[in-house]
Amino acid sequence: MKGLWLENNQLQLRTNLAVPEPPPGEALVRVLRAGICNTDLELIRGYYPYSGILGHEFVGVVEEGPSHLINQRVVGEINAACGHCRFCRTGQPTHCENRTVLGIVNRNGAFAEYLTLPTANLHPVPDRVSTDVATFTEPVAAALEIQQQVKITEGDRLLVVGDGKLGQLVAQTLALTGCELLVIGRHREKLANLEVRGIKTGFADAVQAGYFDISVECTGNPEGWAIARRALRPRGILVLKSTYAGDITIDASSLVVDEITLIGSRCGPFQPALDLLSQNKVDVKPLIQAHYPLEEGLAAFGHAQQRGVLKVLLEIGSES
Amino acid sequence: MKGLWLENNQLQLRTNLAVPEPPPGEALVRVLRAGICNTDLELIRGYYPYSGILGHEFVGVVEEGPSHLINQRVVGEINAACGHCRFCRTGQPTHCENRTVLGIVNRNGAFAEYLTLPTANLHPVPDRVSTDVATFTEPVAAALEIQQQVKITEGDRLLVVGDGKLGQLVAQTLALTGCELLVIGRHREKLANLEVRGIKTGFADAVQAGYFDISVECTGNPEGWAIARRALRPRGILVLKSTYAGDITIDASSLVVDEITLIGSRCGPFQPALDLLSQNKVDVKPLIQAHYPLEEGLAAFGHAQQRGVLKVLLEIGSES
Repeated sequence: MKGLWLENNQLQLRTNLAVPEPPPGEALVRVLRAGICNTDLELIRGYYPYSGILGHEFVGVVEEGPSHLINQRVVGEINAACGHCRFCRTGQPTHCENRTVLGIVNRNGAFAEYLTLPTANLHPVPDRVSTDVATFTEPVAAALEIQQQVKITEGDRLLVVGDGKLGQLVAQTLALTGCELLVIGRHREKLANLEVRGIKTGFADAVQAGYFDISVECTGNPEGWAIARRALRPRGILVLKSTYAGDITIDASSLVVDEITLIGSRCGPFQPALDLLSQNKVDVKPLIQAHYPLEEGLAAFGHAQQRGVLKVLLEIGSES
Repeated sequence: MKGLWLENNQLQLRTNLAVPEPPPGEALVRVLRAGICNTDLELIRGYYPYSGILGHEFVGVVEEGPSHLINQRVVGEINAACGHCRFCRTGQPTHCENRTVLGIVNRNGAFAEYLTLPTANLHPVPDRVSTDVATFTEPVAAALEIQQQVKITEGDRLLVVGDGKLGQLVAQTLALTGCELLVIGRHREKLANLEVRGIKTGFADAVQAGYFDISVECTGNPEGWAIARRALRPRGILVLKSTYAGDITIDASSLVVDEITLIGSRCGPFQPALDLLSQNKVDVKPLIQAHYPLEEGLAAFGHAQQRGVLKVLLEIGSES
């Protein structure tokens, strides 16, 4: 089969990959569509020493697996857990000590014609959700993780820093809480996507220092961190939503004096994400900027790496 | 009156200071005893641009103020709040936007014969608590702040990094929760203070990476931070208890991947601290290493700055 293979920070289109054979408890999924995420771009830059098929945002059709899933369109949670360690036993499979992660840690990913995942990771996609839209289930779930970690109450003052793919989804999911929301970015046309949904946006100079209860850093760069920090009131909460490629330097003393809380936030719950997409409460279509066939995967990555580009999708298999 | 005055990072004994006149709502307190804290040492190093009388840990006797406090021994909360801002109105006076802080921010401190504080900040010291012991009310309260911020359950695995003054008090207060506690330090004789109370201690090599639910950083140095971070399991909580003199560099990506929470922690509740001291549940006497009269304040600071020294107390006024 064909797939996009990462090795030594080089992405290659390979055409002679073996179709994987699902081990017990896993299903064979024929991939229909997949999305390029910033994490994929960071993996190419060497953020984590991964070698194998890249990709973790996908929609596919089950070809081998339990009968109730056969021929179903599915999306899949990306952490494959052991089921036995202390994190699995305490309901935290995304932190399983022995986990593999689709296209990220020791598990071939979704930028290929087929993948395998544990059956328990798969969620059927409702008919009314298009394949393009369902491809966003994973990042919408990641955005929802914030609300699993931090109680957000109507009227809370929230700042989202970053108008990229992740910032846009974080902003849309937070807007549903009834909080007082401001989204800061650098691109007028991206912020416009949010403005049409009634979300207030601005550039960095719109942020009043010390005003916000909670800020969410979605840029992955030190400037974004600095804005998110400065925006917080004492005892405010800064959610780190973006995997940084490197280190950041923080004034630890000011965190102590202001009793700031920092929370790292990663993968989130799939079913609520599918529900939001199904109810049209989050609109992902304006984020889609291009479709490429798998065979043009390298060109797709070239496009996704351009400054200011939102979601690039790979068309891998056909739905019928 | 006499007092220790800080200006341009120089501490001086001054003998011609005016006895302060308490403004409305404040009491005049004759200082009996005061403790030198690491924050005082950091202020001398220029950690914050403070100029004035230093000192914030004290016991005194009220000479002017409301009748129920006159001639009472008291300790005092160090943040003088405005009572009107959004933090005061929401029960967070330690974060008052207009606060002054005894011996730290725009308010003369306790290393002098007299000080003033708002009456609301003063707490009578029970007769059974000696003046030496009561001097520790402020740092014990700061240690208890951790339990205001983080729910600690019996059996939780806690690590305290640092065997200095703060680490010792943090360890003793945490031990009362029934958690599984390990305290890491560099000084066998300091750790012995905790061992005799049944608290498990060790050097850095005793820390099993990824084992702990909560770690408390009490050293104020980057090595301490690194140990506290490495010790945590995914979704663990790192409490920053020490005001650092400078910046620290963190791997933000690993905070996101492991969904770590960082919490800055500062001043805490006085009454529970006085109660613990009154009930002998925290033993501060082994921490006292020397007493100096106020006139020998500079020598006292020289002593307190020596590596490995715990609490140095200033004897300022007599109790009768």
